[in-house]
Amino acid sequence: MINIGIVGASGYTGAELARILVNHPEARITVATSRQYAGRPLSEIFPHLRGRADLVCENLPVAELCERADLFFTAVPHKTAMDLVPDLLAAGKKVIDLSADFRLRDLAVYEEWYQPHSSSHLLNEAVYGLPELYRKQIAGSRLVANPGCYPTSIILGLAPLLAAGAIMPETIIADSKSGTSGAGRAAQTGTLFCEVHDGFRPYKVGRAHRHTPEIEQELSAVAGKQVKVTFTPHLLPISRGILSTIYASLAPGFDRKRIDELYRAKYGDEPFVRLLADGVFPATQYVRGSNYCDISYKIDPATGRIIVMTTIDNIVKGASGQAVQNMNIVCGFAETAGLGVVPFFP
Amino acid sequence: MINIGIVGASGYTGAELARILVNHPEARITVATSRQYAGRPLSEIFPHLRGRADLVCENLPVAELCERADLFFTAVPHKTAMDLVPDLLAAGKKVIDLSADFRLRDLAVYEEWYQPHSSSHLLNEAVYGLPELYRKQIAGSRLVANPGCYPTSIILGLAPLLAAGAIMPETIIADSKSGTSGAGRAAQTGTLFCEVHDGFRPYKVGRAHRHTPEIEQELSAVAGKQVKVTFTPHLLPISRGILSTIYASLAPGFDRKRIDELYRAKYGDEPFVRLLADGVFPATQYVRGSNYCDISYKIDPATGRIIVMTTIDNIVKGASGQAVQNMNIVCGFAETAGLGVVPFFP
Amino acid sequence: MINIGIVGASGYTGAELARILVNHPEARITVATSRQYAGRPLSEIFPHLRGRADLVCENLPVAELCERADLFFTAVPHKTAMDLVPDLLAAGKKVIDLSADFRLRDLAVYEEWYQPHSSSHLLNEAVYGLPELYRKQIAGSRLVANPGCYPTSIILGLAPLLAAGAIMPETIIADSKSGTSGAGRAAQTGTLFCEVHDGFRPYKVGRAHRHTPEIEQELSAVAGKQVKVTFTPHLLPISRGILSTIYASLAPGFDRKRIDELYRAKYGDEPFVRLLADGVFPATQYVRGSNYCDISYKIDPATGRIIVMTTIDNIVKGASGQAVQNMNIVCGFAETAGLGVVPFFP
Amino acid sequence: MINIGIVGASGYTGAELARILVNHPEARITVATSRQYAGRPLSEIFPHLRGRADLVCENLPVAELCERADLFFTAVPHKTAMDLVPDLLAAGKKVIDLSADFRLRDLAVYEEWYQPHSSSHLLNEAVYGLPELYRKQIAGSRLVANPGCYPTSIILGLAPLLAAGAIMPETIIADSKSGTSGAGRAAQTGTLFCEVHDGFRPYKVGRAHRHTPEIEQELSAVAGKQVKVTFTPHLLPISRGILSTIYASLAPGFDRKRIDELYRAKYGDEPFVRLLADGVFPATQYVRGSNYCDISYKIDPATGRIIVMTTIDNIVKGASGQAVQNMNIVCGFAETAGLGVVPFFP
Repeated sequence: MINIGIVGASGYTGAELARILVNHPEARITVATSRQYAGRPLSEIFPHLRGRADLVCENLPVAELCERADLFFTAVPHKTAMDLVPDLLAAGKKVIDLSADFRLRDLAVYEEWYQPHSSSHLLNEAVYGLPELYRKQIAGSRLVANPGCYPTSIILGLAPLLAAGAIMPETIIADSKSGTSGAGRAAQTGTLFCEVHDGFRPYKVGRAHRHTPEIEQELSAVAGKQVKVTFTPHLLPISRGILSTIYASLAPGFDRKRIDELYRAKYGDEPFVRLLADGVFPATQYVRGSNYCDISYKIDPATGRIIVMTTIDNIVKGASGQAVQNMNIVCGFAETAGLGVVPFFP
Repeated sequence: MINIGIVGASGYTGAELARILVNHPEARITVATSRQYAGRPLSEIFPHLRGRADLVCENLPVAELCERADLFFTAVPHKTAMDLVPDLLAAGKKVIDLSADFRLRDLAVYEEWYQPHSSSHLLNEAVYGLPELYRKQIAGSRLVANPGCYPTSIILGLAPLLAAGAIMPETIIADSKSGTSGAGRAAQTGTLFCEVHDGFRPYKVGRAHRHTPEIEQELSAVAGKQVKVTFTPHLLPISRGILSTIYASLAPGFDRKRIDELYRAKYGDEPFVRLLADGVFPATQYVRGSNYCDISYKIDPATGRIIVMTTIDNIVKGASGQAVQNMNIVCGFAETAGLGVVPFFP
Repeated sequence: MINIGIVGASGYTGAELARILVNHPEARITVATSRQYAGRPLSEIFPHLRGRADLVCENLPVAELCERADLFFTAVPHKTAMDLVPDLLAAGKKVIDLSADFRLRDLAVYEEWYQPHSSSHLLNEAVYGLPELYRKQIAGSRLVANPGCYPTSIILGLAPLLAAGAIMPETIIADSKSGTSGAGRAAQTGTLFCEVHDGFRPYKVGRAHRHTPEIEQELSAVAGKQVKVTFTPHLLPISRGILSTIYASLAPGFDRKRIDELYRAKYGDEPFVRLLADGVFPATQYVRGSNYCDISYKIDPATGRIIVMTTIDNIVKGASGQAVQNMNIVCGFAETAGLGVVPFFP
Repeated sequence: MINIGIVGASGYTGAELARILVNHPEARITVATSRQYAGRPLSEIFPHLRGRADLVCENLPVAELCERADLFFTAVPHKTAMDLVPDLLAAGKKVIDLSADFRLRDLAVYEEWYQPHSSSHLLNEAVYGLPELYRKQIAGSRLVANPGCYPTSIILGLAPLLAAGAIMPETIIADSKSGTSGAGRAAQTGTLFCEVHDGFRPYKVGRAHRHTPEIEQELSAVAGKQVKVTFTPHLLPISRGILSTIYASLAPGFDRKRIDELYRAKYGDEPFVRLLADGVFPATQYVRGSNYCDISYKIDPATGRIIVMTTIDNIVKGASGQAVQNMNIVCGFAETAGLGVVPFFP
């Protein structure tokens, strides 16, 4: 049994970590922090947790925090994470960081898209926490940079193709649609019910979204050369779920049979990737609440393009579920421990 | 480990039974039937179950069915159930019936609201499957009549009050609101997305809904005299959840303190009832996906009324979850086995 | 052609006034104010108004404001309204006030539910702007207190019954459900998409909602004696619409035929009240975007109760549409001018 | 004043024609047909029309139909339209056909995607009813083929660019998302509330949707050479609205300034196209209920691509509103007559 600290428990990803961990056979939450809600039970902030996670949120200095748990999930905004993580590591703690602070290996790229980095010495040590790509490195790591939600959906869809040279890297377009929980729980007009409900819109179009360099870093690593993508995020009137529709031109010689083989070779044994049959397409509601990534694709012979479709629950496989999966790997637990929730439909 | 048959697996309650049972430590689904989808895997009808419940649906004669499992959930329409259940019982099987066929103890009342009953000899044997009221009787039963969704939400809210004479039975009004999954999965214009979305409406107003006699039967049993209620169902643009707002005049001498004691005495140890603090009101989204019933109330001194508010997930505590709870009791498993899913928010 | 000022144009009711008035044959918006968005075109704040209401919002002292229009809609919070309205009237302007400040005729009641009143001398002059009850008084008024959304839905449903003594006043229970636009456009966690979507909840239960005294004032006036009601508001996951389900015990001697006559006598010629046939129930989606109030009822003979159901669009008949209706009456325009929008479905 | 017949009044586009036409200054509906609902008032099928369009639906032979109106909207499925339209034309009537039967000029293409054509002699006469491209031809026509919803959103977005050679035709990818009303009002499991709500999915991926040849026909006509596109439709959990995100590689020498000029030159005077400022993106909720098409774009210099975003209400500009716009042109009315409805938000 491991003692777990959730730093930043009052956001949606914090609450989701609690939802998952209270059913985890090897972990127990021993401390949860929140600046805004210090002194209040987690189950008062999130009434769905009543009777299940009644822990009182605290606002503690790092030194005290370190006495309370062995592994920490830092579910805080970028910038906050980079200031906190070094102290946790120095105290011998393991960290799964859900912010963006340790995802980019290139300091210059990080500082171009975010702000100056106060802990850049950790950038090389941090492991990008996508188990399907980096399982071995995660196992030995003390700092896992949990991937962004959009990148998870796009990288998982393309990795087997890029690794095999099955698509032309310069033709990649990712049209992604996300549920509103991705925007967080801070009060703002733009995510009020009346602004989002019964509507749909793109945002941060044209190389404006901060997940772009993260996507490109990982696709480039897989492809073995620099990849640039066009990535367009959209806001769906749903709570959870990302669906990415990804376009690329097929390289000569690749057809349904060979692509099937690539996906099966890569993901056939993955516990959280489900490959759909030809003609079956993913839908966000079929992975809702679970750690699954469903993947499907179609080839359009008239244009020579492949259309890859992936879907995840953005706060499970796109955040807290993947974080627990990473914890399981780091701690040597069964990788699926605590993650057996069946998707939730209707 | 018990072998389970789901009769009528292609409706929402059938799928929900599967969602729950695949994580049950003591039960495994060994047969699932569907007339419409015979020959197709459950996970093809319900893609969220992919990789978790890939069992092929069958259309079997009762005799064969009986060879395939020890306990059956009959998730079929009324009328179908009454024709099937006697054969299952005759073969020595246990039955949890999710239809309305065995809920009403008075044959005349059943036939007034439904149609002639072909198995009326079982009406007295069947136990009304509300564990909080009939746990002992359920334990020894071979035929459990799983309660309706609206009745569950209303009876749980009023039972402690009626039993203690805390409210005037002739003043009860239940204004209930249900998610659309309660209408089932049959294709019909009235429950199309465009007809329900962004809207709200009452239906079957004024003693027209078939749950009325069921509610009155159980409230009368608790009160020890005949109770008539005004019950108004409404259709919410949500998938899951019932919230009942129930009004009654307080009997003299009852105040917050005494009412609190009544609820605590009755439900303090119940694993699936959560009593909310004064000033905290229930919301469907805080029980979604779980087997909880959340209960809260407020007294309006100016009118002498109590307003009781209850909420459940209509296809969990209002159907399949309660059915599994009943199975656990019937089979002597831990009552919460398989039902540990934390509510799902946002 | 009359010149119109909208004070508080950046809320949902302000935007809705603009939506209606740009198609009004006798009115034109000449000034719109917003403290927060001063200097920005209305169509930038509300992009649906692009090309239709491109007026720039201003933040003006009252003196300047008065030079810019002849009639003002004050779509501002209570307290703000009471400080502004006297100056507008002093400058000879007509005012339709959408706040609560001039709705309650009894100063003590106002101050009990709100705060001290700075313009109490106007309480008796202000006319409660429910045209179906006070058309004549509105016609001659310079200050109309536009009714609250919940009160509109409840008073219209009960007025004909109470006036005729058809129901027992002490038995009235109003169970009301409102769309989220009623909560306004201010950023707050409670009305974020993820908090409201796919959920349903009561709030301010038990004599806690400020519309209670307004409802009681008007029902008492119609009944000719003091009426106390139990009123429970609920929050629906829809943008627009209120549906009130109202319960009362019928007085002896009243049946469907007589009740039909009462409704027809009262509303038969009303342009914005639609009486539904027996067995047909209202739904919010059938009045959405329009100024209609749909009314239906059912008698439950077993309990002697009548169930009255009414629905309105809370920001049209419940706010801005009714305000324009009042303007039409005050100015002697056709009462339906600018209000011909057909409800919007699906 | 012209007499209008709506053939197929009981679908969503039929109801929407009624919603628009009851406020049209020059047209009145004199006959509405429905096989399924013959004998029932339109306002009983669509209660939002109560008091506004109470016309009784009929099921008439063509000969009688022709005596009842001068211009017909045929809002019927493909195949039904091709059998009916010749008779209406032979009787001297004008026809705006909302089906797909007369949109494709090439018989072979039609028969490849649909079925044999019984009225192929009319294919060359029919005018593709996109006023922004074919206003003059529409004016003189007796048979207008009203465009599909997806094609309208895509063609309007690309026409100015293709006409000027600003994009590479072989690089076009259209990722489109549609509200569920596009699926019609027929009862089917796939569009039940519970199947669509809180979810999102692609469908008919990879050259499988019948709007593909229509899109390609019109883009080819504008480009002056054969254009093939990759078109992916998705289903949104909203009632109305299409948003298309369209990708293409810019031709050398085109930048924001030149593209702005192209759009302004083409659409600057169009009453129903709104060009958004740089950095402002369209959203379906800002055109809802109106006949507008909002267009925006962004250039990604890193990849040399342009991302064009367009949005329409699929049953207004994508169907019934555009049909009325075509009627206005055919009949010589003001093109905006009856179409002044301001978009409906929130």
